[in-house]
Amino acid sequence: MKTWDHVKENIQIAYIGGGSRGWAWGLMSDLAVEPSLSGHVKLYDIDFEAAAQNAVIGNRLTERSDTVGKWTYEAVPVLKDALRGADVIIISILPGTFQDMKSDVHLPEEYGIYQSVGDTIGPGGLVRALRTVPIYVEFAEAIRQYAPGAWVINYTNPMTLCTRTLYEIFPGIKAVGCCHEVFGTQKLLAKMLETKGYGKVDRRDIKVNVLGINHFTWLDQASYKDIDLMPMYREFVDEHYEEGFEGHEKGHWMNDHFASANRVKFDLFKRYGVIAAAGDRHLAEFMPGDMYLKDPETVRSWKFSLTSVDWRIGNRKMLDAKGKRLASGEEAFELKPTGEEGVDMIKAFLGLTRDFVTNVNLPNRGQMQDIPLGAVVETNAVFGYDEARPVVAGRLPDPVHEMVLRHVNNQEMTLKAALNKDKQLAFQAFVNDPLVRIPKDKAEELFERMLQNTKHMLPGWDL
Amino acid sequence: MKTWDHVKENIQIAYIGGGSRGWAWGLMSDLAVEPSLSGHVKLYDIDFEAAAQNAVIGNRLTERSDTVGKWTYEAVPVLKDALRGADVIIISILPGTFQDMKSDVHLPEEYGIYQSVGDTIGPGGLVRALRTVPIYVEFAEAIRQYAPGAWVINYTNPMTLCTRTLYEIFPGIKAVGCCHEVFGTQKLLAKMLETKGYGKVDRRDIKVNVLGINHFTWLDQASYKDIDLMPMYREFVDEHYEEGFEGHEKGHWMNDHFASANRVKFDLFKRYGVIAAAGDRHLAEFMPGDMYLKDPETVRSWKFSLTSVDWRIGNRKMLDAKGKRLASGEEAFELKPTGEEGVDMIKAFLGLTRDFVTNVNLPNRGQMQDIPLGAVVETNAVFGYDEARPVVAGRLPDPVHEMVLRHVNNQEMTLKAALNKDKQLAFQAFVNDPLVRIPKDKAEELFERMLQNTKHMLPGWDL
Amino acid sequence: MKTWDHVKENIQIAYIGGGSRGWAWGLMSDLAVEPSLSGHVKLYDIDFEAAAQNAVIGNRLTERSDTVGKWTYEAVPVLKDALRGADVIIISILPGTFQDMKSDVHLPEEYGIYQSVGDTIGPGGLVRALRTVPIYVEFAEAIRQYAPGAWVINYTNPMTLCTRTLYEIFPGIKAVGCCHEVFGTQKLLAKMLETKGYGKVDRRDIKVNVLGINHFTWLDQASYKDIDLMPMYREFVDEHYEEGFEGHEKGHWMNDHFASANRVKFDLFKRYGVIAAAGDRHLAEFMPGDMYLKDPETVRSWKFSLTSVDWRIGNRKMLDAKGKRLASGEEAFELKPTGEEGVDMIKAFLGLTRDFVTNVNLPNRGQMQDIPLGAVVETNAVFGYDEARPVVAGRLPDPVHEMVLRHVNNQEMTLKAALNKDKQLAFQAFVNDPLVRIPKDKAEELFERMLQNTKHMLPGWDL
Amino acid sequence: MKTWDHVKENIQIAYIGGGSRGWAWGLMSDLAVEPSLSGHVKLYDIDFEAAAQNAVIGNRLTERSDTVGKWTYEAVPVLKDALRGADVIIISILPGTFQDMKSDVHLPEEYGIYQSVGDTIGPGGLVRALRTVPIYVEFAEAIRQYAPGAWVINYTNPMTLCTRTLYEIFPGIKAVGCCHEVFGTQKLLAKMLETKGYGKVDRRDIKVNVLGINHFTWLDQASYKDIDLMPMYREFVDEHYEEGFEGHEKGHWMNDHFASANRVKFDLFKRYGVIAAAGDRHLAEFMPGDMYLKDPETVRSWKFSLTSVDWRIGNRKMLDAKGKRLASGEEAFELKPTGEEGVDMIKAFLGLTRDFVTNVNLPNRGQMQDIPLGAVVETNAVFGYDEARPVVAGRLPDPVHEMVLRHVNNQEMTLKAALNKDKQLAFQAFVNDPLVRIPKDKAEELFERMLQNTKHMLPGWDL
Repeated sequence: MKTWDHVKENIQIAYIGGGSRGWAWGLMSDLAVEPSLSGHVKLYDIDFEAAAQNAVIGNRLTERSDTVGKWTYEAVPVLKDALRGADVIIISILPGTFQDMKSDVHLPEEYGIYQSVGDTIGPGGLVRALRTVPIYVEFAEAIRQYAPGAWVINYTNPMTLCTRTLYEIFPGIKAVGCCHEVFGTQKLLAKMLETKGYGKVDRRDIKVNVLGINHFTWLDQASYKDIDLMPMYREFVDEHYEEGFEGHEKGHWMNDHFASANRVKFDLFKRYGVIAAAGDRHLAEFMPGDMYLKDPETVRSWKFSLTSVDWRIGNRKMLDAKGKRLASGEEAFELKPTGEEGVDMIKAFLGLTRDFVTNVNLPNRGQMQDIPLGAVVETNAVFGYDEARPVVAGRLPDPVHEMVLRHVNNQEMTLKAALNKDKQLAFQAFVNDPLVRIPKDKAEELFERMLQNTKHMLPGWDL
Repeated sequence: MKTWDHVKENIQIAYIGGGSRGWAWGLMSDLAVEPSLSGHVKLYDIDFEAAAQNAVIGNRLTERSDTVGKWTYEAVPVLKDALRGADVIIISILPGTFQDMKSDVHLPEEYGIYQSVGDTIGPGGLVRALRTVPIYVEFAEAIRQYAPGAWVINYTNPMTLCTRTLYEIFPGIKAVGCCHEVFGTQKLLAKMLETKGYGKVDRRDIKVNVLGINHFTWLDQASYKDIDLMPMYREFVDEHYEEGFEGHEKGHWMNDHFASANRVKFDLFKRYGVIAAAGDRHLAEFMPGDMYLKDPETVRSWKFSLTSVDWRIGNRKMLDAKGKRLASGEEAFELKPTGEEGVDMIKAFLGLTRDFVTNVNLPNRGQMQDIPLGAVVETNAVFGYDEARPVVAGRLPDPVHEMVLRHVNNQEMTLKAALNKDKQLAFQAFVNDPLVRIPKDKAEELFERMLQNTKHMLPGWDL
Repeated sequence: MKTWDHVKENIQIAYIGGGSRGWAWGLMSDLAVEPSLSGHVKLYDIDFEAAAQNAVIGNRLTERSDTVGKWTYEAVPVLKDALRGADVIIISILPGTFQDMKSDVHLPEEYGIYQSVGDTIGPGGLVRALRTVPIYVEFAEAIRQYAPGAWVINYTNPMTLCTRTLYEIFPGIKAVGCCHEVFGTQKLLAKMLETKGYGKVDRRDIKVNVLGINHFTWLDQASYKDIDLMPMYREFVDEHYEEGFEGHEKGHWMNDHFASANRVKFDLFKRYGVIAAAGDRHLAEFMPGDMYLKDPETVRSWKFSLTSVDWRIGNRKMLDAKGKRLASGEEAFELKPTGEEGVDMIKAFLGLTRDFVTNVNLPNRGQMQDIPLGAVVETNAVFGYDEARPVVAGRLPDPVHEMVLRHVNNQEMTLKAALNKDKQLAFQAFVNDPLVRIPKDKAEELFERMLQNTKHMLPGWDL
Repeated sequence: MKTWDHVKENIQIAYIGGGSRGWAWGLMSDLAVEPSLSGHVKLYDIDFEAAAQNAVIGNRLTERSDTVGKWTYEAVPVLKDALRGADVIIISILPGTFQDMKSDVHLPEEYGIYQSVGDTIGPGGLVRALRTVPIYVEFAEAIRQYAPGAWVINYTNPMTLCTRTLYEIFPGIKAVGCCHEVFGTQKLLAKMLETKGYGKVDRRDIKVNVLGINHFTWLDQASYKDIDLMPMYREFVDEHYEEGFEGHEKGHWMNDHFASANRVKFDLFKRYGVIAAAGDRHLAEFMPGDMYLKDPETVRSWKFSLTSVDWRIGNRKMLDAKGKRLASGEEAFELKPTGEEGVDMIKAFLGLTRDFVTNVNLPNRGQMQDIPLGAVVETNAVFGYDEARPVVAGRLPDPVHEMVLRHVNNQEMTLKAALNKDKQLAFQAFVNDPLVRIPKDKAEELFERMLQNTKHMLPGWDL
């Protein structure tokens, strides 16, 4: 990637979900250490207080002498005011409450369906999508009206359907969906190289061809300089298949704190010969339910964990407290790079760098062979001035292609159900998910209960 | 359909599997009562004795004064001799022995996988396909060499992959795959009309739009004269959903003698709003295994049966004895129409009728939207002089489309595995089947045992 | 085709363009001799007087004792009143005045561009399309609102873009575009059989596979009973190539009275090996302009004529006079079959016949390979109760496919230009037509003049 | 683009057409100044003497102290010996003699058809393709057998069909077709920036989205840092439309020495709103013949030239003499960068750089929307270790898309004709070219004469 020497000032960023803790603080941190950009950030959130607190935190950061990227922050109570004039829009929201999330993740357990995350597919991901899509319909309409030329970076899950909804409603939108799961796999490959004596390797130097959909993403090529990593990975998997291999992924608050031993990833490689490029907790949910998520014992044997929503609630409380301390100055904001690439993308869109290649979620315009055009897929793209162009990624091996296609179709069906508030179609997508292997009457009962639990987020539905 | 007044003499038919009981006798019967055709039938079978016996039976029939279609029959020991000069080729074979079939159908039961037929998909259908494809490769090569212009009518299962293999090997072949399962559904609709007071209705007068793949075929339109049958069927399903409805399908030796109460068919209609157009035993196998085939009790509750291979063995013995009696003249051949349409197709191909529309298995050339081109699908086609042109059938509702597509992809993968003798790919198709919901190690064990059992039919495989 | 024995009464037909002479009288004639249908016809026309006169003529016919199809006719001044309650809608209008048509056909002659018809493509067809599309937008919107379930039969040219507009505006419409040009080619083949000693042959017994677009339609298969007509046609073309062959197509007032000797048709067969299935006057316009339409001498050498609009004006006057005589009873209406298939289609749609196969213009849903889906193409379709399903026609030989595709793309571009009133795009389609081989400045001048001449029919255009 | 710090030694390059003057010397020059690569180059040519002379020239260069890339050169008389062990294969040949080329370019002039280059499409390009395809069939077969893993860089015209043939014969080949015409347009844009006061701009900093086919390539996006160049180009075209604008493209022996004033390029922009990205001489040939190439006067008015083959013959003589002087040491080889990117690509393929984005000719795998998959198109691609992945380029505006598609289809037809030695199909492609606007009998005569002239290069044709 080539970096120009000039700087861009007076950039305007709209942050939807600007009251968030993790993601907003991460962006502030990344902006603060980036010398080539400065401007104004408008924080919009349905929790205005949280946005206002973050504005205080952000402005404090700018005042510090050890920051080089100088930004002003402002909490804005109305969406359209946040959007007007924006060059870049960032979206990271929590669609619904922790109670909704509890229903998504844990209610299915009563029916023998275990989900390690429950925010992408499976019963939990589907119901989460049903309540997220209408929110994104609103965002898309507002963006079309108030900031049609801005670049939109989405971090919210379900990533695929959030991005897909934006394009469905406003086809001319310039939006990308960003996820760090592939980075984790690059880090694993870097770690592998280190164990083989190659010294410290930056994950950005691991070049990969990315194919698939978010959280069910695959690599069929991986190299480091002039080293083909595929045979090395094969050997590595053989060495660590039984015990697993624990990477160094811990400590960063933005990362998932739950360790995995990559045993699911290794097992998938042995089955299909391509590298699954997401965390094991995500991957497991895409496979038939008795494979890795049959019951808690099976999960343990594969060395990953079921995320408890109670932990999330506790974690949130901790962050709330931290937020107060950061705003009051009681605690100093610790500057450290998040590893996210949002700021790199912004620089590319603004013409500060070119030919920056990384993975991203975008509608299929030909980059994934034999996947319906328009469906959102995850592949590499070239980022540059006012553009993010997918790189042709090719086609997955037949069995993996089939699984991906099945989820693509189910997600498209979920979108249609959400847009049309079509309960029957939603149920058909529900039972079509490979995690749902229960009798029809039980499935109907579970589905009905889950919808009732999140009814307050399903306006216009006949429930 | 318009019928010309002329007749065609000296037609030459090659019958591969000419020693068969049911199918060969059925053809003889249909030919004997058809006044517009006559000629010579060459019966080829790996069991030459059986073919020779059938030749005797056929020639006896011709001698009878009550037959109007006069044909000579001859058993031919070498395939190419049977093919040379053929105008029409009929294929109905049994790929493998009853022991192979036992392994296909019953071995999976040890692992909790129940199959009602086991000849199309599921573990049994897949393994049957693996041993059938190489046989059809040979047929296709021989047809290309010795009878490239002949029309081929296939009756063997797995119907889709038999037909698909013929086209894969000899793309210029003129082959159709024929199955009477849709006729059964037309009969059910005719019966429905009769219960509503419409008098006796011929199933050929039930007009339907056919979409899907063999044994997982669907109707999204059905009419009788100017009556739309869809709303009537909806009512009919409501009336009979709990108890089921038993049609009149019994007594014909070519039919499956196992009754069903159409409860699976009715349940699928309630789920998806389109009419499933195959016997319940077939339909059940395409759905996730815990839906209709979870265990024998579940099967009973849906009012259909698991076909026992022992019954088939017993039935075959009975037919063997009958064959001897027919050949010796001890028993008189009973002439009665089979209800199959093979002879109608032959008449169309030879220019005796035109614009004859019926359902058939053919490679997708556009008739099924969003299904890969080249995959074999079942839709209506127009039959006429030297042609069978598919009718554009459109697209199934999303959830059904998805299920069909999933099976299409799995069958394509099975074909590739069979052609390349690729055990790993075959296993991936195996575990991808919705009936296979067992742990990987168990699946591997079952797959290995099934392959070993039919090893004698898998030349060139590394087993 | 199977015909049921029942009859349908109280059918309601809306006739848009119901003041027309030829087409309306033809329909009246065909309805009057058809025993299985009766009902009411609403005639709508912007020339209400003409519609009213036709109502008189139609009702007189019904009163006659020698008519078996009894219909009442009524002139209706408002479109929506005509549409409400309609089972079938027929459209045959003249888009614009004879002055508009003169500009379409003859103004390009000043620039050396000769058109034999000027109503389909070429400068004249394009400008005619520009003024016809907005009219059809209105029709489609009215049909969606007032008669969404009715079947629409269109006879107006440009056939492709009229039909295409209906589907563009109301995708759920049930519309077909009908043209008798293929019938003419079937008649030529029947005539050929007669010259070869086969006696009188009905053109409906000539079975053909139809591919292409209206007026540039092709046959790659043709048979009569069990006779392949392709080799016979090859011989026939060789015999008659130099002199041409004049069929019997004259005398019927609904036919084009201009004879051709089929020399263009024969020349195209020699070039491409498939049978061009439209009149020579139409075919010539689709080929590069110097091939058959270079100048009047070239046209004469190919033995067809340039249609003069003056003749049309004269003919119209004659028909006007005849209309008065028919209405007053001064002249008796002569009943004779038109050879059109509108009434056959109506019978099929109403459930009176089934499996009626004929050629028709419909959006491509897979029937034409490698032609964009949605574009209107002409192939066979199966007609039955409430349906017209295209038959998969395959693909034309490469060079013909290319030419057809080029026109398809140009017509799609014309549609877009007409819908968006985009003069620049319309001009690009204009210069892309193979008849337009003049310098850009000349082309601009011609285009501008043609648009100005028909400006009164281009509301909303910036001219 | 990121460059690693390591070097690659012992690289083996096979150069087919290694006796060439311009291209071979250029590669030697670029290799000699590149510090990160060294190895061995095998020069293969049907003119072995020329290859041997080049080997001398190359080795002399390596001996010089001012070169940093040290390579040994060897002339190899047999193709397979050149290929064995190759990491990279370069192909730049002259298919046929100057007499063949004279016939290609100048014979059509007798029929009023003027071609400015005659090596891509048009009568000359087509006939050149017919004789080049069989040569590339041989290359592809040899590469499959002797160097299946090597990267192939083709420089020969007709670029599209050379590259296409390689993939048709050996689908697994790793080949790219390289052309500098887009660079020329980038230079024009750089020059434009300079005239606007932006100082010296490197053409590599002009970022463009490339779509189309070789020599008929288009840009729908162009930027420099954060400047959108499209509005600036619009203004620039308006300023220079009448007089044209002469760039600085002269003096380099590898460039076309014929100046143009970019008037064709400007005119195309005014027509279509996208930037045509090839030299005017190439662009003109793709448009209908009366537009820019009607006659020599028209050509002059557009300020470009018709390339005379006599000039090429004279130029070759000059280069022959120069070759002798270089080999003998009489003249010193002047080191200067060619501006070609072959060496950059080699470095990427070998893992020395990554994320290098440039335009290249590759089979369409989805990068060009609505263009048949498999056809060779020109778009950007990302180059890296063992890969060149196309970037999704999207779709051209309708009228340009149509023209490109038409040429794509004609080139595919030409390929089929060349592979099958099908004279009739070749003729159909011939008359389908927009430059060919002459009567059929004249076209047949010209075609026949052109084939006869190059008969010695058309083995197996029935001429």
